[in-house]
Amino acid sequence: MKNKPKRNVIVGQSGGPTAAINSSLAGVYRTAIDRGYQKVYGMLHGVQGLLEGRYIDLSDHIKTKLDEELLKRTPSAYLGSCRFKLPGISEDRAVYEQIFNILNDLEIDCFIYIGGNDSMDTIKKLSDYAIVTGSEIRFVGCPKTVDNDLALTDHTPGYGSAAKYIGTSVKEVIRDGWSLETAKGQVLIIEIMGRNAGWLTGASALAKGEDCDGPDAIYLPEIPFDVDAFVEKCRALLKKKRSVVITVSEGIHTEDGTYISDMGNSASYVDAFGHKQLTGTARYLCNVISERIGCKTRAIELSSLQRAASHCASRVDILEAYEVGGAAMKAADEGESGKMVVIERTSDDPYQSGTEVKDVHRIANDERLVPREWITEDGTYVTNRFISYVRPLIQGDVAAIMVDGIPRHLFVPGYQELL
Amino acid sequence: MKNKPKRNVIVGQSGGPTAAINSSLAGVYRTAIDRGYQKVYGMLHGVQGLLEGRYIDLSDHIKTKLDEELLKRTPSAYLGSCRFKLPGISEDRAVYEQIFNILNDLEIDCFIYIGGNDSMDTIKKLSDYAIVTGSEIRFVGCPKTVDNDLALTDHTPGYGSAAKYIGTSVKEVIRDGWSLETAKGQVLIIEIMGRNAGWLTGASALAKGEDCDGPDAIYLPEIPFDVDAFVEKCRALLKKKRSVVITVSEGIHTEDGTYISDMGNSASYVDAFGHKQLTGTARYLCNVISERIGCKTRAIELSSLQRAASHCASRVDILEAYEVGGAAMKAADEGESGKMVVIERTSDDPYQSGTEVKDVHRIANDERLVPREWITEDGTYVTNRFISYVRPLIQGDVAAIMVDGIPRHLFVPGYQELL
Repeated sequence: MKNKPKRNVIVGQSGGPTAAINSSLAGVYRTAIDRGYQKVYGMLHGVQGLLEGRYIDLSDHIKTKLDEELLKRTPSAYLGSCRFKLPGISEDRAVYEQIFNILNDLEIDCFIYIGGNDSMDTIKKLSDYAIVTGSEIRFVGCPKTVDNDLALTDHTPGYGSAAKYIGTSVKEVIRDGWSLETAKGQVLIIEIMGRNAGWLTGASALAKGEDCDGPDAIYLPEIPFDVDAFVEKCRALLKKKRSVVITVSEGIHTEDGTYISDMGNSASYVDAFGHKQLTGTARYLCNVISERIGCKTRAIELSSLQRAASHCASRVDILEAYEVGGAAMKAADEGESGKMVVIERTSDDPYQSGTEVKDVHRIANDERLVPREWITEDGTYVTNRFISYVRPLIQGDVAAIMVDGIPRHLFVPGYQELL
Repeated sequence: MKNKPKRNVIVGQSGGPTAAINSSLAGVYRTAIDRGYQKVYGMLHGVQGLLEGRYIDLSDHIKTKLDEELLKRTPSAYLGSCRFKLPGISEDRAVYEQIFNILNDLEIDCFIYIGGNDSMDTIKKLSDYAIVTGSEIRFVGCPKTVDNDLALTDHTPGYGSAAKYIGTSVKEVIRDGWSLETAKGQVLIIEIMGRNAGWLTGASALAKGEDCDGPDAIYLPEIPFDVDAFVEKCRALLKKKRSVVITVSEGIHTEDGTYISDMGNSASYVDAFGHKQLTGTARYLCNVISERIGCKTRAIELSSLQRAASHCASRVDILEAYEVGGAAMKAADEGESGKMVVIERTSDDPYQSGTEVKDVHRIANDERLVPREWITEDGTYVTNRFISYVRPLIQGDVAAIMVDGIPRHLFVPGYQELL
């Protein structure tokens, strides 16, 4: 393999977008070009788009170093995303044959997939199929997820920027509450992403500092949620302060597994992986507080704002995302397959990290939750250990490239219509 | 008056907080000190707190130039806000006597009130009472409101920063939608503040540029809202694109005055001025789209995030807010009373502005709406004239003072308990 001329690379993005996933794409592209590959294709909407023959030549999009910098600062998945679940090899060989035919037609040597748990499942299956069929194409996964729930890696690119945005916005909203004059007090509930893992919701504790108390309580999905205890907590807090701010994960549920969001009448939507789209947890709890305590309430859902907030990205995160993209490309170039790049933290203070390559079979579909001992005993806050874990990941800024007062993103005319 | 030694100043904040209202406070403080006043008091929670004898000496809070810079970057009303409506002088003289007794005890020469329409009403009544009773205390208003609905001024401090945040966040969320792969498409509805005036919602058009289409439709409260026409608009848009993003004002209502937010089952709350607190417009419309079109929907309310987003403040806005605070203090120092400072735009391109002083009787309780000709004929977008009005107000950034990865705000230990 070493003596064959290098041919082409294809890269895709999958799962929920983040503020850092395009920095990984830039890292893959730069390393592929630097290592002498001819073309770097981008599959549009991941494997799903690839199956429909939809892809671009990334050199039509990244023409200058400035374009590369813009790409690092562009939120969302530049290539479009998908939630396509590959069937098992024994279930449907035809789809694998189709994918490999396309890859062979494009003369692909390396296939890089940037995504979360579901994407690593795709890497696992495709690399297995390559072994079974004797294909020399290498398949390497590059981690991303705002949820930070990927196993084996210290953390995932995308999480740090979302955590920085959450810490910043929650702090601003807490301060906003200080201005309030209301005799009965107000309970503000902020709903944060994270279906089963409370990493993002826990990051709201970053608001806490010398100049801010932080949220008054933090409810993660790792701990069963008790509505009555929650109401009593609010009641007690309102005796001490006028403006109570509480952060909750979208995925909090009671001991018996009932999602709080399902207790209201929220519309629900199930994706291709059978994941339920959750909405309305904060609003439901506001209604409960309003009825039982009678004070003013306000619900805020950070919704897709939190994963798209490139304007508030963490420098550590954007750089690590770039490095991880580069490391995935390097691993594939050096003959690795069925692997995922992970981030290894070598020191907390000063923060130091590096990348490693791990077997994707050990990773796929494992959800990493917040350790029980990083949550306080009563289950309503995160501990200092949690804070010292996340704090290094939000350091530094990535100055947006401002045009007319608004951050500029990478864009090629007509591209949106292709997506 | 000129030969009397200068005594003290008191300043208050009222109404909904903004990202710039504390920059005006810093401007008042700096100018008062520079002009030789002894003490600058801050009333806590405006006139309401003053009546309860709650105030601070601002020099205990702003001890250094760094503190002043931090104050300019601190969102919310540093002094706390209120929505206290002064009765007419003939209705309740006692409350006026009480206020003037407090002011006289504190040896106040100048009373500066930073706020919106309701606050200017307070300035008007207090200055009238001063004339009636021969008091030499001067009362000057300093404009602020994210809503930008104050009459006689070209725009109000606070609006530019909120507009910049809205343009930035809407652009990020639109881009987030590009990543989406869904056969039926998605309609995302973003709800923006503005009860009767569409200035903030219109600012979502700032997302539009060479790299972004901007929102697909913009609904302001100035134009009666037709639910059926809205559904048809969405249906037509979904034929052209996968991800439809629409911005709506919280205050949109039908021809007969029914608020869209009231069509759902949202909790409603009426403040001291009889203003209804609106929630749930976007969510209600999502439910309608979901039922009638059957596609995926997502509702985002920018809620208090949009008025508290100091991390995304506009430099023009923060500097103008500071200037306006200084100009209010200067006017009061020079003997003006019953006046409000306004911003006069002298040029659009290059943008130039200055301050003037106007009679508060001409201003109070007048709401300035978006002119009909700045909205497209079909009522679903703003025109270029609107954009060229708002664009200069979002220019430039105010670098946050970052500590541990999160913006630092001004804070004095124990202060929160006083508020």
